Amino acid sequence: MDKIVGRNPVLEAIRAGRNFEKLVVQQNAGGSIQKILDQAGERHIPVQHVDKSALDRLAGNGGHQGVLAFVSDFCYAQIEDMLAAARDKNEDPLILVLDGMEDPHNLGAILRSAEGAGVHGVIIPLRRSVGITDVVAKTSSGAIEHIPVAREPNIREALKKLQNAGLWAAALDMDGERYFEKDLTGGLALVIGGEGGGLRRLVKETCDFAVSIPMYGRLASLNASAAAAVTLYEIKRQRIMQTRG
Amino acid sequence: MDKIVGRNPVLEAIRAGRNFEKLVVQQNAGGSIQKILDQAGERHIPVQHVDKSALDRLAGNGGHQGVLAFVSDFCYAQIEDMLAAARDKNEDPLILVLDGMEDPHNLGAILRSAEGAGVHGVIIPLRRSVGITDVVAKTSSGAIEHIPVAREPNIREALKKLQNAGLWAAALDMDGERYFEKDLTGGLALVIGGEGGGLRRLVKETCDFAVSIPMYGRLASLNASAAAAVTLYEIKRQRIMQTRG
Repeated sequence: MDKIVGRNPVLEAIRAGRNFEKLVVQQNAGGSIQKILDQAGERHIPVQHVDKSALDRLAGNGGHQGVLAFVSDFCYAQIEDMLAAARDKNEDPLILVLDGMEDPHNLGAILRSAEGAGVHGVIIPLRRSVGITDVVAKTSSGAIEHIPVAREPNIREALKKLQNAGLWAAALDMDGERYFEKDLTGGLALVIGGEGGGLRRLVKETCDFAVSIPMYGRLASLNASAAAAVTLYEIKRQRIMQTRG
Repeated sequence: MDKIVGRNPVLEAIRAGRNFEKLVVQQNAGGSIQKILDQAGERHIPVQHVDKSALDRLAGNGGHQGVLAFVSDFCYAQIEDMLAAARDKNEDPLILVLDGMEDPHNLGAILRSAEGAGVHGVIIPLRRSVGITDVVAKTSSGAIEHIPVAREPNIREALKKLQNAGLWAAALDMDGERYFEKDLTGGLALVIGGEGGGLRRLVKETCDFAVSIPMYGRLASLNASAAAAVTLYEIKRQRIMQTRG
């Protein structure tokens, strides 16, 4: 983990899309700190408020201007590499797109299931999503060592790129056809929304079709991680049955 | 939540299989407290050690003999009621048996997926398993209001009871046949082991057959909650496809 000290360095790191573990801010600090806090809020970066002496200790000296940040050095992947990995294995690409997971436990659990299902890569948005923090890494049970994760500034653009590469984009959504009645073989990007609001309208509209997981009890939905596991494993099942048949 | 105060009342409550949220014990208390702690350890009851004045406050007076407990009033179900519920719906029974979940978040997540998959009931062991605590209730997203949960002193006896009622007992185990290649229609009890060691040998041997979830990446297994969701939804898929012919 790296430590970034001072207002401009922290702002630059936010703009560069570095992977923030935590932002530490001096209580009642003014000026451009508010701008940093706003941008941190947009990107769901955890913020801790401490007094000046605590910040002095963390920074090692007094030149911190009221702010420092811890960033991790997880190495994000490129979409092109994911597609190339599928090609190398002679498999139809299977990409998971997570549009705005906010809970690191959820993201970690999904990455573990995605790795288990043999997904070629996972795409998360640069903003409005937790990044690959230590909690995500731990919850993923080591999956992040094996599965490429790309962070994209614009999810719709990323989907169009995948569609141009020949993949179907399938939204997981309550209005969709039942997931096991739809042919999910062939190159596919499965798109799942965040814990709260589900998929955003424009992202959903970019998808080629939608599939849903039927609920056989009284609850309205599965949690995102169970939904991801069920759908990804059905995709794999269909592919294996097709290869045989 | 109820509060139980004093050594004998707490011991009785443990013996009666009450549902413990937490045991609060006075620091350095001697005598039969050790026996209570041993039994609490066996049942994975969370224990908090406090000083005498804190315990006096919690108990409301000094007659606590160094121990009190908080128990919840979750109402456990009977296996017979689960089978009757399936009969009433004219469905083949689908029962989930969880042999020793220790993490309340895991148990809550599994109960949510089980409710979503329309399971008729969930069986957990009386010992070596977390009960239905507040954390389980919260993580289940309300599923515990809808899904019957039975707590059985002996999981093998419970499985035999289900087998006598005409159900197959299927162990989820790495050595099994791939879950989607096995016919999982008809009355079924799906048996899943705890987070750590998986299924105990004797429980596994009581099962009629085993199924496994293939891992397509490098990790050795899915987490218990993803594995439960994938298998339960495959069972439902097979049942629906069979009904259609």
